[in-house]
Amino acid sequence: MTYCVGLKLNAGLVLLSDTRTNAGLDNIACYRKMFFFENPGERVIVIMTAGSLSVTQTTLARLEEAVEDEMADETTSILLAPTMLQVASIIGDSLSRTRREISEMSRDLSQRQASASMIVAGQREGGDMRMFLIYPEGNFIEATEDTPFLQIGEHKYGKPILDRVITPATSLADGQKAVLLSMDSTLRSNLSVGMPLDMAVIEKNACTVSARRRILEGDEEFSRMSHAWSAALRNSFVEIAI
Amino acid sequence: MTYCVGLKLNAGLVLLSDTRTNAGLDNIACYRKMFFFENPGERVIVIMTAGSLSVTQTTLARLEEAVEDEMADETTSILLAPTMLQVASIIGDSLSRTRREISEMSRDLSQRQASASMIVAGQREGGDMRMFLIYPEGNFIEATEDTPFLQIGEHKYGKPILDRVITPATSLADGQKAVLLSMDSTLRSNLSVGMPLDMAVIEKNACTVSARRRILEGDEEFSRMSHAWSAALRNSFVEIAI
Repeated sequence: MTYCVGLKLNAGLVLLSDTRTNAGLDNIACYRKMFFFENPGERVIVIMTAGSLSVTQTTLARLEEAVEDEMADETTSILLAPTMLQVASIIGDSLSRTRREISEMSRDLSQRQASASMIVAGQREGGDMRMFLIYPEGNFIEATEDTPFLQIGEHKYGKPILDRVITPATSLADGQKAVLLSMDSTLRSNLSVGMPLDMAVIEKNACTVSARRRILEGDEEFSRMSHAWSAALRNSFVEIAI
Repeated sequence: MTYCVGLKLNAGLVLLSDTRTNAGLDNIACYRKMFFFENPGERVIVIMTAGSLSVTQTTLARLEEAVEDEMADETTSILLAPTMLQVASIIGDSLSRTRREISEMSRDLSQRQASASMIVAGQREGGDMRMFLIYPEGNFIEATEDTPFLQIGEHKYGKPILDRVITPATSLADGQKAVLLSMDSTLRSNLSVGMPLDMAVIEKNACTVSARRRILEGDEEFSRMSHAWSAALRNSFVEIAI
């Protein structure tokens, strides 16, 4: 499985993904699940993926091919599309088509349908920051004031902390802390989500990736935070009267 | 959905279930999901249920019928079975048979199979405390030193807190606090789990229910604990350095 989470805060976007891919317990590999499409200053788009690797890789490859195609226009290239909504729409169409094709190919052998979902976040110069969750069918929902975070993959373990601390007014620093703690809970409770992690921060109106960080297994800062959080939870637990 | 959790601690068993049942969002009802079979001092058995209400109700009705049947013997009545293992086996067989029958009945109308799972916990005089998770197929797993808690239903939201604080040495008081906080996280993050709650404590070797409590919506103690936990989480969050 996978865990990816995105926050749309007033101050900017915070995105975090793990990198574990598995086809059964004995076939575990590390694949990046966060992808950047950028024309710095003009637009920045980040895509995070969950689900069947063949679907997500093919979809990404097609999006990249369309971006590099000299004949590309605003209906095919996400670097030319005039709005983030149309970016989400191009990605949704590509995901849906790829998923259908691959399901069709594997229909003879497997009842299980190949499936995948994505989080798409970004901003175009002059437009608003936007963040979408794209479903396997290609349709999508958008993060709003009321729901400033979106998750894909193994989202349940890490939801309680986000429900409690994230509002649109949360700072970018607190946002990073929250997604890392949300990931920490998920890593502890579910083996199919694994290090290293990819984190990206996009400040409002920067239209470029402001900070990007890969957090490796044994990362000191992350370990310290994870231990401090465990200790804090245990202390809070002890202090609460029943 | 449902959330039920059971702890098998050195000091005894702690069990908690919600009561929400739904068939779609507009058909929500309250049904007890915790059932007691007791011959105080000789044996105590608690069953918690998750899944299709028609399957769990019919299974429970059959177990009760077998207990009351004058012809019942140790292979049919869970109050006569010589060990907790055989209690689990009788319940597993009954669940599996009921599930198959109901799936068969509904096959014409629905692709979705009726399904249900159960947690069975208890002790017989002279035997050990034991706790089992019974799968829809009738097979089961048991709580052990390494895994002193079992969950059914919407288990993911409430797992991180249990992973962090529960060991076999946890006291009964701390166990109750932990399952209530685990339930609190689930209630906050998932609408299909709802109050009131049923909690039971069975002290080791008592072979009877030591304490039983129904926690209603607006219960002062539970609300206070829930608020204190939220405040403690938020404070811990603020204090942790990234």
